[in-house]
Amino acid sequence: MIKKITIVGGTHGNELIGPYLIRKLEQDGSFSQSAIPVDYLLANTAAYKEVRRFIDADLNRSFTDDILNGHDDSIYEHRRAREINRILGPKPNNERFIIDLHSTTTNMGMTLLVRDHAAFNLQAAAFVQQHMPAVKIIMSDRDNQLSCTLNSLSDYALAIEVGPLPNGVLRHDQFAETEAVIKHLIDFALMPQEEQNTALPESVEIFKVTDRILYPRDDEGELTAMVHHSLQDKDFQELKPGMAMLQNRDGTVTNYEGKSGYPIFINEAAYYYENTALVITNLETVSLRS
Amino acid sequence: MIKKITIVGGTHGNELIGPYLIRKLEQDGSFSQSAIPVDYLLANTAAYKEVRRFIDADLNRSFTDDILNGHDDSIYEHRRAREINRILGPKPNNERFIIDLHSTTTNMGMTLLVRDHAAFNLQAAAFVQQHMPAVKIIMSDRDNQLSCTLNSLSDYALAIEVGPLPNGVLRHDQFAETEAVIKHLIDFALMPQEEQNTALPESVEIFKVTDRILYPRDDEGELTAMVHHSLQDKDFQELKPGMAMLQNRDGTVTNYEGKSGYPIFINEAAYYYENTALVITNLETVSLRS
Repeated sequence: MIKKITIVGGTHGNELIGPYLIRKLEQDGSFSQSAIPVDYLLANTAAYKEVRRFIDADLNRSFTDDILNGHDDSIYEHRRAREINRILGPKPNNERFIIDLHSTTTNMGMTLLVRDHAAFNLQAAAFVQQHMPAVKIIMSDRDNQLSCTLNSLSDYALAIEVGPLPNGVLRHDQFAETEAVIKHLIDFALMPQEEQNTALPESVEIFKVTDRILYPRDDEGELTAMVHHSLQDKDFQELKPGMAMLQNRDGTVTNYEGKSGYPIFINEAAYYYENTALVITNLETVSLRS
Repeated sequence: MIKKITIVGGTHGNELIGPYLIRKLEQDGSFSQSAIPVDYLLANTAAYKEVRRFIDADLNRSFTDDILNGHDDSIYEHRRAREINRILGPKPNNERFIIDLHSTTTNMGMTLLVRDHAAFNLQAAAFVQQHMPAVKIIMSDRDNQLSCTLNSLSDYALAIEVGPLPNGVLRHDQFAETEAVIKHLIDFALMPQEEQNTALPESVEIFKVTDRILYPRDDEGELTAMVHHSLQDKDFQELKPGMAMLQNRDGTVTNYEGKSGYPIFINEAAYYYENTALVITNLETVSLRS
């Protein structure tokens, strides 16, 4: 079914591990003899040059049908999304397995962001986790609804998200870890299906996105709160109602009032654009047997 | 001698602690009754809006006489440097004590960057260190030569630099620490001189900048190395000749070959612009008695 594997870097131009890693893999020919051909794409070339997340709009929110079929050329990332759709698509191109490389400023460690369009994605993530037990798996529901990410070009797609890493910085340890994840993913994609089945556990734990907590802002649009120090860096640690969540500029503290959950993307730089202070997930066990 | 104190935030538009903190101090009136008037300045207003270090050029390299006396209006930060010179200057305006708020992506903790134009600066830094022993003091020689920073507007000036903090992120703990440093600095500035003298230790340890290590790049201008994992986060820990320093894309390792020293700004995001992988300092003991 999968006839090509594409490793994408620089979907966000200030996340440096991807661009540097695809260049390295291309140069040292790591996967040049692979039974399924592996190719590489630097996605947001203009933003990468300027070390910015994006130029005019977030490329990873630009793969909607409206944009891909549209003709408005005023937004750089919309033009680039159409170009990438011609290279990797047309959407959906389910002969292609896409691995999109990202980083986060938050203390999430190594995570795999999985869309549940194909059982293969979760299986591949579980295979990685067997070899690298610290890896966590996140299932996003938002992407299901919006289908706007680069990974939405194929039903077979995963994003690697590693942190904490400041934007505009390369870290050797996280770089090597990302490379190790890619190798396991490609190993899995190359296995015959019966071998894949025996290589997998019965079930896997996933963090499923359920909610987002927004920042408060004043009339001028300025933030009036920041993540409370007791929550900072506590990604994947249970957040219960009544626990301190935001430190307000006026000195008061806002406590969490939702249902118990596991916060992720706590104080992520990129999410200030979307006004999101943190994301809440549920921990669920999912069977890998059909 | 000091007739005004100015606290500056947002000299780099993606370092968020400063802009948020000056807004908070202004709103809660922390220093509104101070015997020396305290005012506030958001320095790079345009870059702050775009959450970028700068728009056209680094504002904190734009306070040279050439730029301040120039008339070329094509670079935003040069225009803004002239405006700030009208507000805080004209350079040098030694009636003003400037505290410029910065952050770093590196693991440097809380540091004070001191220029040795006036004994007062080092004394004020030493006073802070007495109350907050983890604070480190860095003496920059480069600024002496170039005199291009916002702080060069007055001989009485200090920069607060706190990390590790990704650009575009506010951290509560570092925010509170920066506020504490400011309070100690203003306490010191308000003391009568004899009281200042008795409040200080005999001598203080400083890290004096001696060298910079540059990144190698290929013909296309792309980085061909990153900081080696064994050096990452090891700011202020002795770096000796022969220790691993850079991991090259081709798999080899470049060792440090200079004299033993204390590295700082290891893998700083902003220094990729200036191609600097790390800065080397010497640890020196300086007398505070004249």
